[in-house]
Amino acid sequence: MIVGVLGGGQLARMLALAGMPLGLDFQFLDPAPDACAFSLGRPLIGDYGDTALLEKMAAEAQAATYEFENISLQAVRFLAQRIPLHPTPDILEIKQDRLLERRLFQELGIPTPDFLAVQTARDLERAAEQFGFPFVLKTRSLGYDGKGVWVLQDKDSLKNLPERFVSSPVLAEQFIPFEREVSMVAARNPEGQIVYYPPAENTHKQGILIQSVVRPNDPAASTAELYLQRILTHFRYVGVLAVEFFQFQGRLIANETAPRVHNTGHWTIEGALTSQFENHLRALLGLPLGITASLAPTAMLNCIGNLPDRRAVLEIPDAHLHIYGKKPRPGRKVGHVTLRAEDERHLSEKIRKVRQLLADCSALV
Amino acid sequence: MIVGVLGGGQLARMLALAGMPLGLDFQFLDPAPDACAFSLGRPLIGDYGDTALLEKMAAEAQAATYEFENISLQAVRFLAQRIPLHPTPDILEIKQDRLLERRLFQELGIPTPDFLAVQTARDLERAAEQFGFPFVLKTRSLGYDGKGVWVLQDKDSLKNLPERFVSSPVLAEQFIPFEREVSMVAARNPEGQIVYYPPAENTHKQGILIQSVVRPNDPAASTAELYLQRILTHFRYVGVLAVEFFQFQGRLIANETAPRVHNTGHWTIEGALTSQFENHLRALLGLPLGITASLAPTAMLNCIGNLPDRRAVLEIPDAHLHIYGKKPRPGRKVGHVTLRAEDERHLSEKIRKVRQLLADCSALV
Repeated sequence: MIVGVLGGGQLARMLALAGMPLGLDFQFLDPAPDACAFSLGRPLIGDYGDTALLEKMAAEAQAATYEFENISLQAVRFLAQRIPLHPTPDILEIKQDRLLERRLFQELGIPTPDFLAVQTARDLERAAEQFGFPFVLKTRSLGYDGKGVWVLQDKDSLKNLPERFVSSPVLAEQFIPFEREVSMVAARNPEGQIVYYPPAENTHKQGILIQSVVRPNDPAASTAELYLQRILTHFRYVGVLAVEFFQFQGRLIANETAPRVHNTGHWTIEGALTSQFENHLRALLGLPLGITASLAPTAMLNCIGNLPDRRAVLEIPDAHLHIYGKKPRPGRKVGHVTLRAEDERHLSEKIRKVRQLLADCSALV
Repeated sequence: MIVGVLGGGQLARMLALAGMPLGLDFQFLDPAPDACAFSLGRPLIGDYGDTALLEKMAAEAQAATYEFENISLQAVRFLAQRIPLHPTPDILEIKQDRLLERRLFQELGIPTPDFLAVQTARDLERAAEQFGFPFVLKTRSLGYDGKGVWVLQDKDSLKNLPERFVSSPVLAEQFIPFEREVSMVAARNPEGQIVYYPPAENTHKQGILIQSVVRPNDPAASTAELYLQRILTHFRYVGVLAVEFFQFQGRLIANETAPRVHNTGHWTIEGALTSQFENHLRALLGLPLGITASLAPTAMLNCIGNLPDRRAVLEIPDAHLHIYGKKPRPGRKVGHVTLRAEDERHLSEKIRKVRQLLADCSALV
């Protein structure tokens, strides 16, 4: 059986690594001729909207998925009309417009920052009145890794907006001075079975995820599960879903969804009984989902811009290195390190060591 | 970096699945155009002794290994003269002659069944006198999965030997009515670091491995470690080594070595902190070896001849399916199932379930 994947990056690559033991073969559509997943399946090199290539995928693959959201909705629907494709394009449509995403959270009773659609200068002033400073401007269409987000500190900054926040539809919202960022990854299969991974506590730097840590008995678990369940059942969703939350004054406030395997779920490869990648594929194929419990306190640290010294990482007990096979470039995720430990104290020590190694090599911008 | 592998079967495939996250690419030499590892690297289709292909591998790969022993020693030495190749051809030479293997055990003070080289009918009679009935005849050159082994029950059977035991050099040895079969997998890197996996208790059927079970605190561990250490240091060995033992009257009696990743070590993919495949590659690259402790009581069951129902296997909690992508054929290993459980009782229950599923599909001969 062949699974088609729109995108040939590291998520597609890790899907294939998880899927081959299940007996699956893969096909990847990506415009980059050196896409890092290509060594694990049949490459289709071209634009995501190339209908000839999409037809080819539909003819050869028995099911399809996508590894990122910056992809033409039309192309995804085109493919979904031909072969089973998950997650549903309906959630992708919402995900591609931050205004619709905020409204979805509202509609499902999931706390989210207060927001205002902004079309005119008057709307901006109204946002400043309603939210006070600082407040946040976001392009409605997708950014990633913090792109398309702007924090307004004062009245003067209203006059000096970067071009993209003037030229494209934007959303103003409340600035949340969160205590921490938490995400949850869950999976649902066509029969309605849902499994939830333990929450990850995340750290971002310049909008890019730096680190996710999973500790036993995170108090955010039960509320996060409730919120993800609402989204999963609303869409009769199939596959892995990730939701990022701010935790503010002890409450979870939904910030973003990701209808796909997610960077804050990479820890599951070694840290959970079944990885997010395997469960995404199990869901796509209509198979029973695997247990999501964590095996140990676990952390995942991204390698950004460059890779750390391989020997130094592997000298750390129970450290696992994932190299994506991508050319180093500032701001680019080129790998990650997973750390497991018997308890939180040992985990913190290992994190400190790896952060030192990463500090020597990372290039964020 | 490219690693060349002589052989493109499931062991090569699992090596590649473990090696790609370490940033490795693979090249496989195998005569079968549909070798199951080929989807994970560059295929070199041809005979193992094809010097043009070996030259090609030497030119493109930076290090090499082999996934099985039935391979021309000359070819392995040819490649080893050109690029670093491990495990050393010296152990392969010994492994390819059961008489030399028995003598190696003797020389290193590792208990092994009493044996006699057999060249004439008189030698056979002498073996019968020395060992009594039953005793065992083995071809000196390699068999696998129990091929090349013959148990003589009585005097009459001396006259009705199968052709291969008459036409090729053979070895007679003591029949060991063992209590159980135990194997140990260990790895050594060029700096002399050695790591030992917990012993596996194995079950064979018609000479084919059916099942390996790893329980905490197996009493065979310390003695087996001692014996493997002798072999590893004797050869300044690099890579994974497996040794199979009979346990008889509480003693370990070495039966076979395997200078490679081994079927009785497949449980390590999910069951140990670092898999045998990753440690084999770490050793080959001169990297620090990973921790080998087991995560939980673990069992590995081979799928022989056919695959079990995928859904039924995946319904079992913490069951992990490995499909090799090989055409079903009686006696052929086409996949395996790994089971982890919180304790031995739960593990036994899960084993029972999977054995039922396998009973419905297995074809040994």
